[in-house]
Amino acid sequence: MSLRPLWDAAGVAVVGASDRPGAVGRLPVEFLRRYGYAGGIYPVRPDGAPVCGLPSSASVVEARRAGPVDLAMVMVAADKVVGAVRDCAAAGVPVVIVCSSGFAETGDAGAALQDEVVETARELGVRVLGPNCIGTVGTGSGQVSSFSPLFSGESTELVAGGLGFVSQSGALGYGAVSLAFQRGLGLGWVVNTGNEADLGAAEVIAAIAREPGCTGILGYAESLADVGALARVVASGVPVALLKAGRSEAGARAAASHTGALAAGDRIVDAALRRAGVVRVDDIEELLDVGDVMSLVPSARGRQVRRVAVVTTSGGSGILAADAIDSQGPHLELAALSQSTLAALEEIVPAFGSTANPVDVTASVMSNPALFDRALGVIAEDEGVDAIVACFCVLTGTDVDDVVSALARVRETSGVPVVVVRTGADHLAPDAGATMRAAGLPAYPTPERGVQALAALSRMAASEHRDRAPARVVDVRMTAGMGEDALKQTLARHGLPVPVGRIALDRDDAVAAVAEAGGRAVLKAVVPGLLHKSDAGGVVLDVTPEGAPEVFDRLLAMGGHVLAEELVPGGVEALVGTTDSPLGRVLTVGVGGVLTEVVADVALRLLPVDRQDVEEMLDETRLARLLAGVRGGGAADRDALVDTVLAVAEVAAGLPPGAELDLNPVTVLARGRGVRILDAALALPEDAGD
Amino acid sequence: MSLRPLWDAAGVAVVGASDRPGAVGRLPVEFLRRYGYAGGIYPVRPDGAPVCGLPSSASVVEARRAGPVDLAMVMVAADKVVGAVRDCAAAGVPVVIVCSSGFAETGDAGAALQDEVVETARELGVRVLGPNCIGTVGTGSGQVSSFSPLFSGESTELVAGGLGFVSQSGALGYGAVSLAFQRGLGLGWVVNTGNEADLGAAEVIAAIAREPGCTGILGYAESLADVGALARVVASGVPVALLKAGRSEAGARAAASHTGALAAGDRIVDAALRRAGVVRVDDIEELLDVGDVMSLVPSARGRQVRRVAVVTTSGGSGILAADAIDSQGPHLELAALSQSTLAALEEIVPAFGSTANPVDVTASVMSNPALFDRALGVIAEDEGVDAIVACFCVLTGTDVDDVVSALARVRETSGVPVVVVRTGADHLAPDAGATMRAAGLPAYPTPERGVQALAALSRMAASEHRDRAPARVVDVRMTAGMGEDALKQTLARHGLPVPVGRIALDRDDAVAAVAEAGGRAVLKAVVPGLLHKSDAGGVVLDVTPEGAPEVFDRLLAMGGHVLAEELVPGGVEALVGTTDSPLGRVLTVGVGGVLTEVVADVALRLLPVDRQDVEEMLDETRLARLLAGVRGGGAADRDALVDTVLAVAEVAAGLPPGAELDLNPVTVLARGRGVRILDAALALPEDAGD
Repeated sequence: MSLRPLWDAAGVAVVGASDRPGAVGRLPVEFLRRYGYAGGIYPVRPDGAPVCGLPSSASVVEARRAGPVDLAMVMVAADKVVGAVRDCAAAGVPVVIVCSSGFAETGDAGAALQDEVVETARELGVRVLGPNCIGTVGTGSGQVSSFSPLFSGESTELVAGGLGFVSQSGALGYGAVSLAFQRGLGLGWVVNTGNEADLGAAEVIAAIAREPGCTGILGYAESLADVGALARVVASGVPVALLKAGRSEAGARAAASHTGALAAGDRIVDAALRRAGVVRVDDIEELLDVGDVMSLVPSARGRQVRRVAVVTTSGGSGILAADAIDSQGPHLELAALSQSTLAALEEIVPAFGSTANPVDVTASVMSNPALFDRALGVIAEDEGVDAIVACFCVLTGTDVDDVVSALARVRETSGVPVVVVRTGADHLAPDAGATMRAAGLPAYPTPERGVQALAALSRMAASEHRDRAPARVVDVRMTAGMGEDALKQTLARHGLPVPVGRIALDRDDAVAAVAEAGGRAVLKAVVPGLLHKSDAGGVVLDVTPEGAPEVFDRLLAMGGHVLAEELVPGGVEALVGTTDSPLGRVLTVGVGGVLTEVVADVALRLLPVDRQDVEEMLDETRLARLLAGVRGGGAADRDALVDTVLAVAEVAAGLPPGAELDLNPVTVLARGRGVRILDAALALPEDAGD
Repeated sequence: MSLRPLWDAAGVAVVGASDRPGAVGRLPVEFLRRYGYAGGIYPVRPDGAPVCGLPSSASVVEARRAGPVDLAMVMVAADKVVGAVRDCAAAGVPVVIVCSSGFAETGDAGAALQDEVVETARELGVRVLGPNCIGTVGTGSGQVSSFSPLFSGESTELVAGGLGFVSQSGALGYGAVSLAFQRGLGLGWVVNTGNEADLGAAEVIAAIAREPGCTGILGYAESLADVGALARVVASGVPVALLKAGRSEAGARAAASHTGALAAGDRIVDAALRRAGVVRVDDIEELLDVGDVMSLVPSARGRQVRRVAVVTTSGGSGILAADAIDSQGPHLELAALSQSTLAALEEIVPAFGSTANPVDVTASVMSNPALFDRALGVIAEDEGVDAIVACFCVLTGTDVDDVVSALARVRETSGVPVVVVRTGADHLAPDAGATMRAAGLPAYPTPERGVQALAALSRMAASEHRDRAPARVVDVRMTAGMGEDALKQTLARHGLPVPVGRIALDRDDAVAAVAEAGGRAVLKAVVPGLLHKSDAGGVVLDVTPEGAPEVFDRLLAMGGHVLAEELVPGGVEALVGTTDSPLGRVLTVGVGGVLTEVVADVALRLLPVDRQDVEEMLDETRLARLLAGVRGGGAADRDALVDTVLAVAEVAAGLPPGAELDLNPVTVLARGRGVRILDAALALPEDAGD
């Protein structure tokens, strides 16, 4: 079913409409008329009294007789919402916005009522936005099906454009929309999803992305369920930037109590959004800043936007831009200009400027349109330059036009994206913002913000969709009661490198087992519930056949079995693990062994992963440096570790929901010698097991 | 000599004045008149022709006859500046702003000319601002002794206030000033320091800080020389926030070429500013955001501003504020509200709000002034709350007045600092900014920026000046050619814990030396130039008296001496080092041993340091966790490490300029067992030594 009526309905019914000035039940009627909505507006109220001079109906079914109604806003008390949804369904209305609050956000009773609304709607084939939401806006059609106080402001004008804006929060969302309009950032589709009982942000984003003319989507979310849908949107060519709140534990707790949604750990959210190619931002201002590049810079997808030339008339701005570019690595780096570029610039830039990047062309070049044009052209044509940041301060009225035409020209002819930084009060050049926007130049007040927006462009351009084979699901049959030996045997059966070893049955068998393990072995007590067995004296290193009987006795006395394993020499200690999350199964790789907690350095990915993912995970952590060989040590067998991680990923895909597998330490031996999983632990949720 | 004429001169001479509209030599004359400067304005030009209708003089000496002149702006060509300075000196002008460019920023010849200007000025007792600068502004006196195009804008009005603004960069500086004025942030004193040939930013900041009514200073700097002067300003009670550019290597390089100044490593700059109590910021917008709390919130110095309550009507803003507070740790944390506060809020806040911090009071409470007042009062009176962040979205005109009076009241009665976040377009409440400012409430457009400004307030409040004893300078007499043994003996003489050991003279002596070292020793080849002696086989562990002769022979064959030392058991490996920098001698403490490069985790401080500094350094790094004991290991002798670091700091203070001392690894044994410096290396600059 299409969600288009949310922003482009043929007719809107307002259920619970009121004529009282200021009443929320009157506002959408008022707003739909004020902003020129051309479809039918149908106030619904029991007494049939007029609203804003429009006749009202006693029900949606009755209203439907006057014309097509494909969207209803339900604004009645919570306990009357189910009835209203039935009325809508009876009238054939496919999409209903439940604005009313008093549902899951108020506690258990409200949550039950919310479930009832959703069940009723599903039964009757109606899609529900909300409850507890402020509505939607289609700027193209003037459809303000919302009661946000933003539209009460007489001075508020809709600014149409190619971006969608989807927010779980109503107040913050419309606050952000007002700031977007203020800076001239046009939005075509605005949706507040509220409690997301039926329609979630991801589904709405996907629907907007299918609208003709949509060039990108900005979102604010407190919970995330369907990252896969976002990945498909991005893969279809529509970039998505998301402010996902709840980074901190306190924030996540507040978000959970606000929406009742299950929160995934923030690093998992990061991993999921990154996999999906979604640009994650941290602030409303950054979200809108990214919106500006999305709407103004033609899609740079697949094209590299990494090496940046800074052109400035202010040395200070240039330095700040260089600092900001450095802090945005690896997404951005300061371009190294070629010798011929530098030579050409020497001809143009006076001695008190600078031809090295950041290029300080000086005010004297900027005030000479021909020279400034040439300087820009030379830089844009450098093969080593992917993008230009142009920084100016205190630009006054007449300067703006010259600068803008030169920058627009170079962008036009070279195709190199240009971002402008103008650090100065609006009144010095009141039209500068609009002029730059009209010329397709996103403009920011400080070098840091301009560079941050450019970094988002780089991330969008680099988000190439890679087809990963779905995780091969192997049936690993692991059980909660498995001892270390059984667990390792299971891992070995799936091709994972565990030390040669087995349970020794008695003193004599211990001697044999040590001999089988190569003559020098490690003996371990396998005792259910004994976690840190080294600390408890349950691990004896370098046991010979001769010493085996005595050690066997000692370990057996600890109350379990005795495992004899080959003695593995020292190496780089890694950890490889997998846990479950609301967003999917997570693979973790990082520094292991005794340094695990101290160094605390791991990389996360959602399954499936391929070899490139695993290589990137190693590179993200200090493991890369450890594997390359710390002072005096040779390189470790990185390839074998990658193979092992990929094999663990296959095993992980076969684990039951909620299961956690931790392999730590995984010792990586010298190159060519492989990897050994020295310790393994499995935790299953209480209701799982086999 | 007072620098007051820079912003409050009795009379200003403009040397190189011009009457041609738009000429830089005309602008200051125009600006001084336009902004109501009441002192004398004396254009100086050879032909004596009038400028802006004012009579001009052929020299400053001549101008001086017409009235007092205590400031001159020199705007003549670079090669005429020395002559102009002589003219100023002859006229008794104490302070000269050299606006002309063509000095150090253009290369060696310019640098020589700049030196000549400074020498002439020093000889004649004249202070020089610049060269290559755009001038100064005293808003109180309307003294716009500047030619910044900012003041060409007919719409530019000066906004007076209690903050000083000092910028090394002219264009960026006046761009920032225009943005400050635009937001209503008043500045009393604005100075662009340019090349800083004579007057540096620190000296100017110190002079502004002494002006009556100065409540804080904002600065932009590319190089830093005199951090001590800034420390004294902060200690005197005037907070300083600084945007120090050149964080990145590329940025630092650009800054150095821009100003010719010696750049200290950014981490050293951080350490120096932190020691001085200066709040370092990263962006022009953040600098102004901090300015707002500086100018609006009464000094919170010595009072804790750490535990923050968030009050909001938007759940989303509350979550974002909680996230931002978490990211500002340890400067800020979300306050834990007391049981009685929560109980009192339960009475006020409806079910669909939230009484837990962030407190979502809901729009219904906010629209009821009495209820909102009570909720705010209850929160402000909680002993666990140091500050309040109040977040609103889409606040419209009439709401603003109610909200502002409630917030101002609670701030007034409780003394708790309040920061407002208003996420919504200006036109919805055009006077909101001014109303909030007038009520002493700093207001920001997003939770992140509001929280960041509050974190700056917390840092200012916490910057308590601590008297540290000056570093005890011990004469360590270290020489470049010292072997490990001699270096360790020198360290031992200064009370530093090195292993028991000595050079073995021959095979027999090696046996004796091993016995002296406790019967189990480490033998080391001491060969000049051999750096990684372990890798080269130059270190043999656990040598007994019996094995000593053979090992001695082997190591002697490497071409140097043989050192026998006690065998030190394993422990936590730290590094302790000291290097020199343009800002002073630096002490470094961090994770050492083979993990040095991999973990790369060190803390830096400028000397002198005291015990509290060293404890904080350990806590900043992973050493704290390692010393506390990793899994299964007991705690290490942290106190002994602190003693050792303090002793190293004393030795460091006695090293010649440029010398570097690296102690790594420094093994920290179990608690009560002390510390041993296992390896030591000294590097002296070529021209040092003894």
